[in-house]
Amino acid sequence: MDVLQAIRERRSCRRFLPDPIGEETLRQMLEAAAWAPSPLNSQPWEFVVVTNAAKKAEQRSAAEACHQWALKESGWKWLSGYRMDFLTEAPAIIAVVGDPKKTGVDMFQQEGTVAYQHACAAAIQNLMLAGHALGVATLWFTFFDKPAVREILEVSAEKTPLALVCAGKAAEAVADVPRKDVHAKTRYI
Amino acid sequence: MDVLQAIRERRSCRRFLPDPIGEETLRQMLEAAAWAPSPLNSQPWEFVVVTNAAKKAEQRSAAEACHQWALKESGWKWLSGYRMDFLTEAPAIIAVVGDPKKTGVDMFQQEGTVAYQHACAAAIQNLMLAGHALGVATLWFTFFDKPAVREILEVSAEKTPLALVCAGKAAEAVADVPRKDVHAKTRYI
Repeated sequence: MDVLQAIRERRSCRRFLPDPIGEETLRQMLEAAAWAPSPLNSQPWEFVVVTNAAKKAEQRSAAEACHQWALKESGWKWLSGYRMDFLTEAPAIIAVVGDPKKTGVDMFQQEGTVAYQHACAAAIQNLMLAGHALGVATLWFTFFDKPAVREILEVSAEKTPLALVCAGKAAEAVADVPRKDVHAKTRYI
Repeated sequence: MDVLQAIRERRSCRRFLPDPIGEETLRQMLEAAAWAPSPLNSQPWEFVVVTNAAKKAEQRSAAEACHQWALKESGWKWLSGYRMDFLTEAPAIIAVVGDPKKTGVDMFQQEGTVAYQHACAAAIQNLMLAGHALGVATLWFTFFDKPAVREILEVSAEKTPLALVCAGKAAEAVADVPRKDVHAKTRYI
Protein backbone atom coordinates (compact mmCIF):
# COMPACT_ATOMS: atom_id res chain seq x y z
CA MET A 1 0.00 0.00 0.00
CA ASP A 2 1.19 3.51 -0.81
CA VAL A 3 2.63 5.30 2.21
CA LEU A 4 0.55 8.48 1.77
CA GLN A 5 -2.59 6.36 1.43
CA ALA A 6 -1.72 4.38 4.58
CA ILE A 7 -1.10 7.60 6.53
CA ARG A 8 -4.38 9.08 5.28
CA GLU A 9 -6.56 6.00 5.81
CA ARG A 10 -5.33 4.61 9.14
CA ARG A 11 -8.00 5.18 11.80
CA SER A 12 -8.45 4.17 15.42
CA CYS A 13 -10.50 0.99 15.69
CA ARG A 14 -12.54 0.11 18.78
CA ARG A 15 -14.39 -3.03 17.63
CA PHE A 16 -12.41 -6.14 16.72
CA LEU A 17 -13.16 -9.61 15.38
CA PRO A 18 -11.63 -12.47 17.38
CA ASP A 19 -9.52 -13.81 14.46
CA PRO A 20 -5.88 -14.01 15.54
CA ILE A 21 -3.21 -11.99 13.76
CA GLY A 22 -1.02 -14.24 11.59
CA GLU A 23 2.52 -14.79 12.78
CA GLU A 24 4.07 -13.38 9.60
CA THR A 25 1.86 -10.26 9.75
CA LEU A 26 2.81 -9.65 13.37
CA ARG A 27 6.47 -10.09 12.47
CA GLN A 28 6.20 -7.47 9.73
CA MET A 29 4.45 -5.05 12.07
CA LEU A 30 7.10 -5.42 14.78
CA GLU A 31 9.93 -5.08 12.27
CA ALA A 32 8.34 -1.89 10.93
CA ALA A 33 8.17 -0.56 14.49
CA ALA A 34 11.85 -1.26 15.02
CA TRP A 35 12.84 0.80 11.95
CA ALA A 36 11.76 4.00 13.69
CA PRO A 37 14.49 6.55 14.37
CA SER A 38 15.76 6.95 17.93
CA PRO A 39 18.35 9.09 19.77
CA LEU A 40 21.83 7.73 18.92
CA ASN A 41 20.02 4.73 17.39
CA SER A 42 19.45 3.52 20.95
CA GLN A 43 16.25 1.65 19.95
CA PRO A 44 14.67 2.25 23.36
CA TRP A 45 11.62 0.05 22.74
CA GLU A 46 10.50 -3.38 23.86
CA PHE A 47 7.27 -5.14 22.98
CA VAL A 48 5.03 -7.47 24.93
CA VAL A 49 2.46 -9.21 22.76
CA VAL A 50 -0.49 -10.21 24.93
CA THR A 51 -2.89 -12.84 23.60
CA ASN A 52 -3.64 -14.60 26.91
CA ALA A 53 -7.29 -13.97 27.85
CA ALA A 54 -6.64 -13.73 31.58
CA LYS A 55 -3.89 -11.14 31.08
CA LYS A 56 -6.13 -9.14 28.77
CA ALA A 57 -8.88 -9.20 31.40
CA GLU A 58 -6.43 -7.93 34.01
CA GLN A 59 -5.45 -5.05 31.74
CA ARG A 60 -9.08 -4.19 31.19
CA SER A 61 -9.78 -4.16 34.95
CA ALA A 62 -6.81 -1.88 35.49
CA ALA A 63 -8.01 0.45 32.73
CA GLU A 64 -11.53 0.49 34.18
CA ALA A 65 -10.18 1.46 37.59
CA CYS A 66 -8.25 4.27 35.92
CA HIS A 67 -11.42 5.23 34.05
CA GLN A 68 -13.43 5.57 37.26
CA TRP A 69 -10.75 7.66 38.79
CA ALA A 70 -10.41 9.93 35.74
CA LEU A 71 -14.19 10.32 35.52
CA LYS A 72 -14.19 11.70 39.04
CA GLU A 73 -11.14 13.92 38.54
CA SER A 74 -12.13 15.33 35.15
CA GLY A 75 -15.88 15.82 35.55
CA TRP A 76 -16.09 14.96 31.82
CA LYS A 77 -19.56 13.40 31.50
CA TRP A 78 -18.94 11.82 28.08
CA LEU A 79 -16.29 9.67 29.70
CA SER A 80 -18.95 7.67 31.58
CA GLY A 81 -20.14 6.17 28.28
CA TYR A 82 -16.65 5.20 27.13
CA ARG A 83 -16.50 1.39 26.97
CA MET A 84 -13.25 -0.47 26.83
CA ASP A 85 -14.39 -3.83 25.45
CA PHE A 86 -11.64 -3.61 22.86
CA LEU A 87 -9.08 -4.45 25.57
CA THR A 88 -10.47 -7.98 25.80
CA GLU A 89 -11.98 -8.28 22.30
CA ALA A 90 -8.84 -7.48 20.33
CA PRO A 91 -6.99 -10.74 19.59
CA ALA A 92 -3.67 -9.14 20.49
CA ILE A 93 -2.55 -6.25 22.64
CA ILE A 94 0.95 -5.08 21.78
CA ALA A 95 2.37 -3.27 24.79
CA VAL A 96 5.13 -0.83 23.93
CA VAL A 97 7.63 -0.30 26.74
CA GLY A 98 10.34 2.37 26.72
CA ASP A 99 13.70 2.48 28.45
CA PRO A 100 14.48 5.93 29.91
CA LYS A 101 18.19 5.12 29.99
CA LYS A 102 18.21 5.02 26.16
CA THR A 103 17.35 8.64 25.59
CA GLY A 104 20.52 10.16 24.12
CA VAL A 105 21.78 13.62 24.93
CA ASP A 106 18.50 14.85 26.39
CA MET A 107 19.41 13.22 29.69
CA PHE A 108 21.68 16.25 30.16
CA GLN A 109 19.22 18.88 28.96
CA GLN A 110 17.15 21.35 30.91
CA GLU A 111 13.77 19.77 30.40
CA GLY A 112 14.47 16.13 31.14
CA THR A 113 14.43 12.71 29.67
CA VAL A 114 11.73 12.29 27.09
CA ALA A 115 13.36 11.64 23.71
CA TYR A 116 13.12 7.87 24.26
CA GLN A 117 9.35 8.29 24.50
CA HIS A 118 9.28 10.18 21.20
CA ALA A 119 11.20 7.35 19.55
CA CYS A 120 8.74 4.81 20.96
CA ALA A 121 5.85 6.92 19.64
CA ALA A 122 7.41 6.88 16.16
CA ALA A 123 7.73 3.10 16.47
CA ILE A 124 4.04 2.87 17.41
CA GLN A 125 3.08 4.92 14.36
CA ASN A 126 5.17 2.62 12.13
CA LEU A 127 3.53 -0.42 13.75
CA MET A 128 0.06 0.96 13.07
CA LEU A 129 0.81 2.05 9.49
CA ALA A 130 2.27 -1.38 8.70
CA GLY A 131 -0.78 -2.96 10.34
CA HIS A 132 -3.12 -0.90 8.21
CA ALA A 133 -1.31 -1.93 5.02
CA LEU A 134 -1.54 -5.59 6.11
CA GLY A 135 -5.24 -5.52 7.05
CA VAL A 136 -4.77 -5.14 10.81
CA ALA A 137 -6.70 -2.36 12.51
CA THR A 138 -5.26 -0.81 15.66
CA LEU A 139 -5.97 1.45 18.62
CA TRP A 140 -3.24 3.41 20.41
CA PHE A 141 -4.52 3.07 23.98
CA THR A 142 -2.89 4.96 26.86
CA PHE A 143 -5.64 5.19 29.43
CA PHE A 144 -3.95 3.22 32.21
CA ASP A 145 -1.75 3.79 35.20
CA LYS A 146 1.80 2.69 34.57
CA PRO A 147 2.36 0.85 37.89
CA ALA A 148 -0.67 -1.41 37.26
CA VAL A 149 0.44 -2.27 33.73
CA ARG A 150 4.02 -2.86 34.89
CA GLU A 151 2.76 -5.41 37.37
CA ILE A 152 0.48 -7.23 34.90
CA LEU A 153 3.15 -7.41 32.20
CA GLU A 154 6.07 -8.02 34.60
CA VAL A 155 7.89 -4.90 33.44
CA SER A 156 10.61 -3.61 35.78
CA ALA A 157 10.13 -0.32 37.61
CA GLU A 158 12.95 1.27 35.57
CA LYS A 159 11.01 0.94 32.32
CA THR A 160 7.95 2.82 31.10
CA PRO A 161 4.88 1.17 29.57
CA LEU A 162 3.83 3.80 27.04
CA ALA A 163 0.95 2.27 25.12
CA LEU A 164 -1.23 -0.77 24.74
CA VAL A 165 -1.80 -1.10 21.01
CA CYS A 166 -4.98 -3.11 20.48
CA ALA A 167 -4.73 -4.98 17.18
CA GLY A 168 -6.89 -7.24 15.05
CA LYS A 169 -9.36 -7.32 12.21
CA ALA A 170 -11.89 -4.47 12.36
CA ALA A 171 -15.41 -5.69 13.21
CA GLU A 172 -16.99 -2.66 11.53
CA ALA A 173 -16.08 0.19 9.24
CA VAL A 174 -14.01 2.67 11.17
CA ALA A 175 -15.21 6.26 11.29
CA ASP A 176 -13.22 8.78 9.25
CA VAL A 177 -12.38 11.43 11.82
CA PRO A 178 -11.59 14.77 10.15
CA ARG A 179 -8.59 16.99 10.71
CA LYS A 180 -8.27 20.75 10.92
CA ASP A 181 -6.62 22.42 7.95
CA VAL A 182 -2.91 21.99 8.66
CA HIS A 183 -2.15 25.27 6.91
CA ALA A 184 -4.01 27.14 9.63
CA LYS A 185 -1.55 25.53 12.05
CA THR A 186 1.57 26.43 10.06
CA ARG A 187 3.65 29.60 10.04
CA TYR A 188 6.38 30.37 7.52
CA ILE A 189 9.40 32.43 8.53
CA MET B 1 6.02 4.33 -2.52
CA ASP B 2 5.03 1.27 -0.54
CA VAL B 3 4.59 2.00 3.15
CA LEU B 4 6.78 -0.88 4.36
CA GLN B 5 9.51 0.20 1.95
CA ALA B 6 9.28 3.82 3.15
CA ILE B 7 9.51 2.71 6.79
CA ARG B 8 12.47 0.46 6.01
CA GLU B 9 14.41 2.92 3.83
CA ARG B 10 13.96 6.24 5.64
CA ARG B 11 17.25 7.27 7.24
CA SER B 12 18.50 10.32 9.09
CA CYS B 13 20.24 12.72 6.69
CA ARG B 14 22.92 15.18 7.82
CA ARG B 15 24.10 16.62 4.48
CA PHE B 16 21.67 18.59 2.34
CA LEU B 17 21.72 20.27 -1.07
CA PRO B 18 20.49 23.88 -1.09
CA ASP B 19 17.58 23.21 -3.52
CA PRO B 20 14.33 24.43 -1.94
CA ILE B 21 11.50 22.01 -1.22
CA GLY B 22 8.63 22.51 -3.67
CA GLU B 23 5.47 24.05 -2.27
CA GLU B 24 3.30 21.07 -3.24
CA THR B 25 5.76 18.59 -1.69
CA LEU B 26 5.85 20.56 1.55
CA ARG B 27 2.04 20.67 1.56
CA GLN B 28 1.85 16.89 1.21
CA MET B 29 4.37 16.39 4.02
CA LEU B 30 2.48 18.69 6.41
CA GLU B 31 -0.85 17.08 5.56
CA ALA B 32 0.63 13.64 6.24
CA ALA B 33 1.85 14.92 9.61
CA ALA B 34 -1.63 16.15 10.48
CA TRP B 35 -3.17 12.69 9.86
CA ALA B 36 -1.38 11.31 12.90
CA PRO B 37 -3.58 10.08 15.74
CA SER B 38 -3.86 12.20 18.89
CA PRO B 39 -5.67 12.02 22.24
CA LEU B 40 -9.35 12.84 21.65
CA ASN B 41 -8.31 13.95 18.16
CA SER B 42 -6.95 17.10 19.79
CA GLN B 43 -4.32 17.58 17.04
CA PRO B 44 -1.86 19.17 19.47
CA TRP B 45 0.72 20.13 16.82
CA GLU B 46 1.74 23.34 15.12
CA PHE B 47 4.45 23.79 12.52
CA VAL B 48 6.89 26.59 11.84
CA VAL B 49 8.64 26.27 8.50
CA VAL B 50 11.92 28.14 8.66
CA THR B 51 13.65 29.03 5.39
CA ASN B 52 15.04 32.42 6.44
CA ALA B 53 18.85 32.20 6.58
CA ALA B 54 19.20 34.48 9.58
CA LYS B 55 16.69 32.49 11.60
CA LYS B 56 18.43 29.25 10.67
CA ALA B 57 21.74 30.73 11.80
CA GLU B 58 20.18 31.71 15.12
CA GLN B 59 18.93 28.16 15.61
CA ARG B 60 22.36 26.79 14.84
CA SER B 61 24.00 29.13 17.37
CA ALA B 62 21.51 28.05 20.00
CA ALA B 63 22.18 24.39 19.23
CA GLU B 64 25.93 24.96 19.39
CA ALA B 65 25.60 26.57 22.81
CA CYS B 66 23.59 23.55 23.92
CA HIS B 67 26.26 21.31 22.40
CA GLN B 68 29.05 22.93 24.40
CA TRP B 69 27.05 22.60 27.56
CA ALA B 70 26.16 18.94 26.91
CA LEU B 71 29.77 18.13 26.03
CA LYS B 72 30.82 19.36 29.45
CA GLU B 73 27.96 17.65 31.30
CA SER B 74 28.17 14.31 29.52
CA GLY B 75 31.91 13.82 29.18
CA TRP B 76 31.11 12.04 25.86
CA LYS B 77 34.21 12.67 23.75
CA TRP B 78 32.61 11.71 20.43
CA LEU B 79 30.24 14.67 20.90
CA SER B 80 33.08 17.13 20.28
CA GLY B 81 33.24 16.03 16.62
CA TYR B 82 29.50 16.36 16.08
CA ARG B 83 28.96 19.15 13.54
CA MET B 84 25.61 20.77 13.06
CA ASP B 85 26.06 22.29 9.59
CA PHE B 86 22.74 20.72 8.58
CA LEU B 87 20.91 23.36 10.64
CA THR B 88 21.96 26.03 8.16
CA GLU B 89 22.50 23.85 5.07
CA ALA B 90 19.03 22.28 4.97
CA PRO B 91 16.76 24.46 2.80
CA ALA B 92 13.95 24.16 5.34
CA ILE B 93 13.70 23.46 9.04
CA ILE B 94 10.23 22.36 10.08
CA ALA B 95 9.81 23.07 13.77
CA VAL B 96 7.15 20.94 15.44
CA VAL B 97 5.53 22.60 18.44
CA GLY B 98 3.17 20.83 20.85
CA ASP B 99 0.39 22.19 23.02
CA PRO B 100 0.35 20.59 26.51
CA LYS B 101 -3.29 21.61 26.99
CA LYS B 102 -4.29 19.23 24.17
CA THR B 103 -3.25 16.01 25.87
CA GLY B 104 -6.55 14.24 26.64
CA VAL B 105 -7.22 12.25 29.77
CA ASP B 106 -3.59 11.93 30.77
CA MET B 107 -3.75 15.38 32.32
CA PHE B 108 -5.53 13.62 35.21
CA GLN B 109 -3.22 10.63 35.41
CA GLN B 110 -0.48 9.81 37.87
CA GLU B 111 2.50 10.34 35.61
CA GLY B 112 1.67 13.64 33.97
CA THR B 113 0.99 15.29 30.70
CA VAL B 114 2.89 13.67 27.89
CA ALA B 115 0.39 12.14 25.45
CA TYR B 116 0.39 15.32 23.36
CA GLN B 117 4.13 14.81 22.84
CA HIS B 118 3.54 11.24 21.66
CA ALA B 119 0.99 12.50 19.14
CA CYS B 120 3.48 15.10 17.87
CA ALA B 121 6.12 12.36 17.55
CA ALA B 122 3.72 10.30 15.42
CA ALA B 123 3.12 13.40 13.30
CA ILE B 124 6.89 13.82 12.87
CA GLN B 125 7.23 10.20 11.77
CA ASN B 126 4.43 10.72 9.21
CA LEU B 127 6.13 13.89 7.98
CA MET B 128 9.43 12.06 7.50
CA LEU B 129 7.89 9.00 5.83
CA ALA B 130 5.95 11.23 3.43
CA GLY B 131 9.14 13.19 2.79
CA HIS B 132 11.06 10.01 1.98
CA ALA B 133 8.40 8.92 -0.51
CA LEU B 134 8.55 12.37 -2.13
CA GLY B 135 12.36 12.56 -2.37
CA VAL B 136 12.90 14.76 0.70
CA ALA B 137 15.46 13.57 3.21
CA THR B 138 15.03 14.57 6.86
CA LEU B 139 16.68 14.70 10.26
CA TRP B 140 14.72 14.64 13.51
CA PHE B 141 16.84 17.07 15.53
CA THR B 142 16.17 17.68 19.24
CA PHE B 143 19.50 18.91 20.52
CA PHE B 144 18.41 22.35 21.68
CA ASP B 145 17.10 24.07 24.76
CA LYS B 146 13.42 24.84 24.50
CA PRO B 147 13.56 28.43 25.84
CA ALA B 148 16.09 29.44 23.15
CA VAL B 149 14.04 27.92 20.35
CA ARG B 150 10.85 29.46 21.71
CA GLU B 151 12.46 32.88 21.51
CA ILE B 152 13.85 32.43 17.98
CA LEU B 153 10.55 31.08 16.61
CA GLU B 154 8.31 33.36 18.69
CA VAL B 155 6.55 30.44 20.34
CA SER B 156 4.68 31.25 23.56
CA ALA B 157 5.91 29.88 26.88
CA GLU B 158 2.83 27.64 27.17
CA LYS B 159 3.83 25.59 24.13
CA THR B 160 6.63 23.09 23.70
CA PRO B 161 9.04 23.04 20.73
CA LEU B 162 9.65 19.30 20.34
CA ALA B 163 11.78 18.95 17.24
CA LEU B 164 13.50 20.80 14.44
CA VAL B 165 13.05 18.58 11.40
CA CYS B 166 15.79 19.46 8.90
CA ALA B 167 14.51 18.75 5.38
CA GLY B 168 15.82 18.88 1.83
CA LYS B 169 17.48 16.85 -0.89
CA ALA B 170 20.20 14.56 0.42
CA ALA B 171 23.70 15.67 -0.66
CA GLU B 172 25.09 12.15 -0.32
CA ALA B 173 23.91 8.59 0.11
CA VAL B 174 22.65 8.19 3.64
CA ALA B 175 24.18 5.43 5.74
CA ASP B 176 21.98 2.41 6.40
CA VAL B 177 22.09 2.13 10.18
CA PRO B 178 21.22 -1.39 11.34
CA ARG B 179 18.69 -2.43 13.94
CA LYS B 180 18.81 -5.12 16.61
CA ASP B 181 16.61 -8.15 15.96
CA VAL B 182 13.19 -6.99 17.14
CA HIS B 183 12.32 -10.53 18.20
CA ALA B 184 14.99 -10.37 20.87
CA LYS B 185 13.08 -7.34 22.21
CA THR B 186 9.67 -9.00 22.17
CA ARG B 187 7.98 -11.22 24.74
CA TYR B 188 4.78 -13.15 24.12
CA ILE B 189 2.34 -13.79 26.96
